[in-house]
Amino acid sequence: MSTNEILRPFFNPQGVVVVGARSTPGFGYTMPISLINRGWGERMYLYNPKGGELHGKQVYKSLSNLPDAVDLAVVIVPAQGVPGVMKEIGLRGIRNVILESAGFVEIGEKGRALHEEVYEIIREFGIRLIGPNCLGVVNTDNCFHTVSVIDEAFKPGPVSIIAQSGMFGSGLLDFAYQRRLFFSKVVTLGNRMDVNECEVLDYLHRDPATGVIMMYLEGASDGPLLVETLARVTQDKPVLILKSGRTPIGRKATASHTGSMSGEDEIYDAAFAQGGAVRAETVDELLYMARVFSTQPLPKGGRLGIITTSGSMGVMSTDTAISLGLTMPAPSARTIEKVMEDSPEWMNVKNPLDVGPSRQFAIALDAMLEDPEIDMVLASIVIPFSFIRLIKKQGLPISDWVGDIGGIRSSKPEKPFVLCSIGNSEFLDDLSEISSDSTPVFFSPELAVKALSALWEYRRRQIGMENNGL
Amino acid sequence: MSTNEILRPFFNPQGVVVVGARSTPGFGYTMPISLINRGWGERMYLYNPKGGELHGKQVYKSLSNLPDAVDLAVVIVPAQGVPGVMKEIGLRGIRNVILESAGFVEIGEKGRALHEEVYEIIREFGIRLIGPNCLGVVNTDNCFHTVSVIDEAFKPGPVSIIAQSGMFGSGLLDFAYQRRLFFSKVVTLGNRMDVNECEVLDYLHRDPATGVIMMYLEGASDGPLLVETLARVTQDKPVLILKSGRTPIGRKATASHTGSMSGEDEIYDAAFAQGGAVRAETVDELLYMARVFSTQPLPKGGRLGIITTSGSMGVMSTDTAISLGLTMPAPSARTIEKVMEDSPEWMNVKNPLDVGPSRQFAIALDAMLEDPEIDMVLASIVIPFSFIRLIKKQGLPISDWVGDIGGIRSSKPEKPFVLCSIGNSEFLDDLSEISSDSTPVFFSPELAVKALSALWEYRRRQIGMENNGL
Repeated sequence: MSTNEILRPFFNPQGVVVVGARSTPGFGYTMPISLINRGWGERMYLYNPKGGELHGKQVYKSLSNLPDAVDLAVVIVPAQGVPGVMKEIGLRGIRNVILESAGFVEIGEKGRALHEEVYEIIREFGIRLIGPNCLGVVNTDNCFHTVSVIDEAFKPGPVSIIAQSGMFGSGLLDFAYQRRLFFSKVVTLGNRMDVNECEVLDYLHRDPATGVIMMYLEGASDGPLLVETLARVTQDKPVLILKSGRTPIGRKATASHTGSMSGEDEIYDAAFAQGGAVRAETVDELLYMARVFSTQPLPKGGRLGIITTSGSMGVMSTDTAISLGLTMPAPSARTIEKVMEDSPEWMNVKNPLDVGPSRQFAIALDAMLEDPEIDMVLASIVIPFSFIRLIKKQGLPISDWVGDIGGIRSSKPEKPFVLCSIGNSEFLDDLSEISSDSTPVFFSPELAVKALSALWEYRRRQIGMENNGL
Repeated sequence: MSTNEILRPFFNPQGVVVVGARSTPGFGYTMPISLINRGWGERMYLYNPKGGELHGKQVYKSLSNLPDAVDLAVVIVPAQGVPGVMKEIGLRGIRNVILESAGFVEIGEKGRALHEEVYEIIREFGIRLIGPNCLGVVNTDNCFHTVSVIDEAFKPGPVSIIAQSGMFGSGLLDFAYQRRLFFSKVVTLGNRMDVNECEVLDYLHRDPATGVIMMYLEGASDGPLLVETLARVTQDKPVLILKSGRTPIGRKATASHTGSMSGEDEIYDAAFAQGGAVRAETVDELLYMARVFSTQPLPKGGRLGIITTSGSMGVMSTDTAISLGLTMPAPSARTIEKVMEDSPEWMNVKNPLDVGPSRQFAIALDAMLEDPEIDMVLASIVIPFSFIRLIKKQGLPISDWVGDIGGIRSSKPEKPFVLCSIGNSEFLDDLSEISSDSTPVFFSPELAVKALSALWEYRRRQIGMENNGL
């Protein structure tokens, strides 16, 4: 069986039982409502030895009466009750479990004993298990989910997440849509007693709905296997990794969080590089990268063209680009000619190209997107918001002023293109609207350039592999 | 005369004339409206050789008829017209000018000749001049402004800005209120033909409404003077600097932006350190720092206490803290005792302190804020937004769940304290509301720690100076 057949029931069960359903506050109460709301009511069963009824559904007193179709159990009972229910699950013939309960290796000795006990049981029955100490999964294709998710986050997108931390995965889902980032699958792995990040990477590699993989790791479950898996996956799909536990005290903290044994940070750096993964240094960087990787084509080279209405934004993004090893060649003669036509006397067409308050922004963008000397384009627009308010009040579209960015982009889609603006969030939203959803509109000029640079790093490695006949 | 008497007319003129007022679109049209709206109509005069009327006010055909009170001219005419009007201004006896026009040294040779010509005129008449190639000033105390500013940005606050770039200053004003950052004075200096950043630093040093100074620099007008000035100012007020032109190509770009000759970046690093200024690496970092420096007390040491509801946030912020040289000692016995009371079995009271989904957050925060082993506190709260929506729908206040953060804070105000959450922006706003305006609520755990670390660096330097009897 391929990983995808093995892990299929976690993302698309034929029937699921919630072990620990209850009528008092907690996930055992809210998860069933949430599954019912998303159309899973007919395929969801509730289990609690107390029996009774919950949300209009029967609560089974025993697993033995469940219909045969049930191939996944979600366990939300206190840690000490886990061995008991795991045996019941095994005896009932259910072979897939999401174990959300905490209180295992992450709490030390006592939890370790419990871990061993549960591990024996799953080996005995041949159960595959995600967790413990996790929130499980989300699949936006069919709306199956064990993580509590707001409606906005169910909009399907090309990014999938592997997060060791449940709360981190859940936190991402709560705001990513506000940054126009949408997901296909989300897996929170917790302590990784059984299913680990490598298996999930393989699953997502084969998953047609996944284009980009984001990971939050506190430690690798198996270093050499991770490198090998990454090397295979990153040939086809980018993997963006935020790895914490970089410092000794941070590593001690990961041990009591997900029981991860995290090695020296330099080893991870080397491993990710060898596996072709892209490492993000901060949460923000990870988000910027995910947005760029999931919307932009790969560049043919590392030559960045910068257009700006604000000299300072041009200088700041230039500094970042040069520091990261991108080049910024002069625009071609054709670009210079096109921009100089009708341009004010003071304009000096070079790279970065400061068009100032002139109306040349759209012309410059169009020219840069087809300039053979340029592989990627960053454009920053800063316009006083008082002026934007004024033109909006007059009912004029912003594109009258900055040009038809969306139209220009869709006629020249070959190069990575990112917009940037420091300014009122309403103006950034306006820019998103006129630029179409596929153009990232960022606040930070530094992170915008970093994301473009990472895109080129990823592509450069692929080219290297191709040239080596790999 | 002290700098404050000299620069007073730029921030609080007795009368101001707009040279280049006009009835066609542009600053010459909008600036007068904006000044009238902010109560400056009676003290504002318009000048244009064409005469006529604008916004219900007479347009003077000549400066000679202006009332005596006028002590500031704002010049917005095309560059080639500047020498002519500057002579008129000089002859009329006006000794302060904000010259907004561009087209001087930043455009090369031709602009340099014009620069020399204007410089001769201001020396001849003893005119003090801000600009050219700038947007001038904002003073929220009296609402005098030549930068176009939206209403929200007029709310006075303790931060003042010195920006070389006009658009950068204007961009900041357009969104800073959305991050709860408010200003006293803003000066955009442009090419600094005359008034430079050192003079303005001295002015803001003495300005009682300014508590923190933010600077965006492309190059120092006089390196040794800047170090000397910073050393004086930073004894009393923190100065946060974002310096661009870090790379050779970035430096070339500053030359054509504000005509700045920017030296090697290492020299600036050393100069800022010597002057006791805090350097921000990115726009975001500058904003986080400004919010922390303008709201938090100075710490007594570099011992950071971290509380979190999400292990991953705890690990990420710990990594940053340790990397930056902060220490994270174990909490005192008293803190451990207080938190362990009523706490779930799995809780392990250490630093970072992961309270998980328990209700111990408020107790832990209270204990950490008075723990003698801890100098600064970072608390991160990640709660599924679906749950937040649910409790809000039920009309329950969020403080029922996370505790009365505002109340705890106000009863223990001595240590720097910052809140952090990755999550829905509505939840971050909710946290801001219950925490009072004086507690920064940040998205990025890394930048939150960086800002606290910078606060301690600033204080540590002050202690060093005091110990050296300086």
